Amino acid sequence: MQIAVIQMNSGGTREQNVTRALALVDQAADRGAQFILLPEYMTFLGPYSEFAEMSESVPGPTTERLAAKACQRGIYLHGGSLIEESADPHRFYNTSVLFDPEGELIARYRKIHLFDVNIPGQVSDAESKKILAGDDIVVVDLPELRLGMSICFDLRFPELYRRMAVAGAEVLVVPAAFTRATGRAHWEILLRARAIENHAYVLAAAQYGKDGASTWRYGRSMIIDPWGTMVAAAPEVGEAVLVVEVQREHVQRRRQQVPVLEMRRPDIYGK
Amino acid sequence: MQIAVIQMNSGGTREQNVTRALALVDQAADRGAQFILLPEYMTFLGPYSEFAEMSESVPGPTTERLAAKACQRGIYLHGGSLIEESADPHRFYNTSVLFDPEGELIARYRKIHLFDVNIPGQVSDAESKKILAGDDIVVVDLPELRLGMSICFDLRFPELYRRMAVAGAEVLVVPAAFTRATGRAHWEILLRARAIENHAYVLAAAQYGKDGASTWRYGRSMIIDPWGTMVAAAPEVGEAVLVVEVQREHVQRRRQQVPVLEMRRPDIYGK
Repeated sequence: MQIAVIQMNSGGTREQNVTRALALVDQAADRGAQFILLPEYMTFLGPYSEFAEMSESVPGPTTERLAAKACQRGIYLHGGSLIEESADPHRFYNTSVLFDPEGELIARYRKIHLFDVNIPGQVSDAESKKILAGDDIVVVDLPELRLGMSICFDLRFPELYRRMAVAGAEVLVVPAAFTRATGRAHWEILLRARAIENHAYVLAAAQYGKDGASTWRYGRSMIIDPWGTMVAAAPEVGEAVLVVEVQREHVQRRRQQVPVLEMRRPDIYGK
Repeated sequence: MQIAVIQMNSGGTREQNVTRALALVDQAADRGAQFILLPEYMTFLGPYSEFAEMSESVPGPTTERLAAKACQRGIYLHGGSLIEESADPHRFYNTSVLFDPEGELIARYRKIHLFDVNIPGQVSDAESKKILAGDDIVVVDLPELRLGMSICFDLRFPELYRRMAVAGAEVLVVPAAFTRATGRAHWEILLRARAIENHAYVLAAAQYGKDGASTWRYGRSMIIDPWGTMVAAAPEVGEAVLVVEVQREHVQRRRQQVPVLEMRRPDIYGK
């Protein structure tokens, strides 16, 4: 299966950002991609004060456009994430949506671990003031691959990826908006570790450059193979479309060679 | 606290290897180390056919020498691992022992995850044919630091390190004998990931060069700080003594800045 990872900057309005994302999706589809991943906060990456205005329901205006594009191009399309309305008018979900080639919504994942950090002089954020955490692990079958869903800060929690791998996930997706500071220190290491310890592909789509709130995002979108080797990567700055062929056989072979999932000791540390 | 990590080659007999290890421990103590870590299979790294001869009880001949050295130099001494006798005369434990500055045995850890891999053309091993797996997670208090114990292949199981970090471990030790093939692909990435995701120091003492069974070991002993930065590293080949100051404050500060341990969701994926 040909998969694509898209790097972009969602500093504009929702309308502008989705339009740009769909143009990049077309580029990826033109290159033969059958599954395409967009980054976190694809619809809007800016001040929390504008979240209410940029939020929407699912289904809603953005999912309508994503569904139409998936159907038009006959692709699986992962929308990165959008700002989903909740019952509370002041708070939202950071939500991934995945469409199949018929334009049907086949999976929805709400970010579980929210970006609440305070690193003096580098980055301070409290995503949980505006975003409600999801409660559900989501694994979904594509025709040739089982996919595990996550978003950005989730990457720091190996237990989530382990649970998805144990549930059969062969490809782990990480739409993200890592900051430059934490990205340079941790991004590649954590992505490659999740691939190695689970012998799974890791697809990581990043935001780059200065976002709508003037925070620098790290870029460096990557595709990692099940041995932990980086097989494609974007620069820190600039739009990018990475396309790589992903094969279930590679996952199966590595899991036979180093059968970590079978060698776990749930009797000691839980399932 | 000054800590040291020792890299060596245990290709000789048990007697020779322990003698060489204690000479390197003296070098580390001369440089001010208060806690010293030796590599996995410090007492003997050779064919399984010789394990019976090189095995011993705990306490036994090697622990006697380690205890005496710890007491003589007034240090905490982690023996890497030795081949510990079990009730079955044909099978053993891969066991770490830790002595305090009075020469008292204060912790014993038996390797939980055994090295059973088959990577055609690179490395094939079945440690579990000769070694019995341990069943217990071990965390132990030093005066200024809480230490979590592991050995080599354990490194591929993030759930073990997470459990130790949740139990308060601030320093994670990894005495090891990674092969050159898996070492080059995975060693640094996994060590740094364990440090980053738990905001803990990781101390990794490696075997280097051709062992007594002609397998190439990777070397590259390392000390990683709680931000994931490599603060000391040995080359692939050659003995080495790395000495670094480790401070609980650095762990505490990073865990305040990015409070991953508090942000876990045990309701979703278990404790």
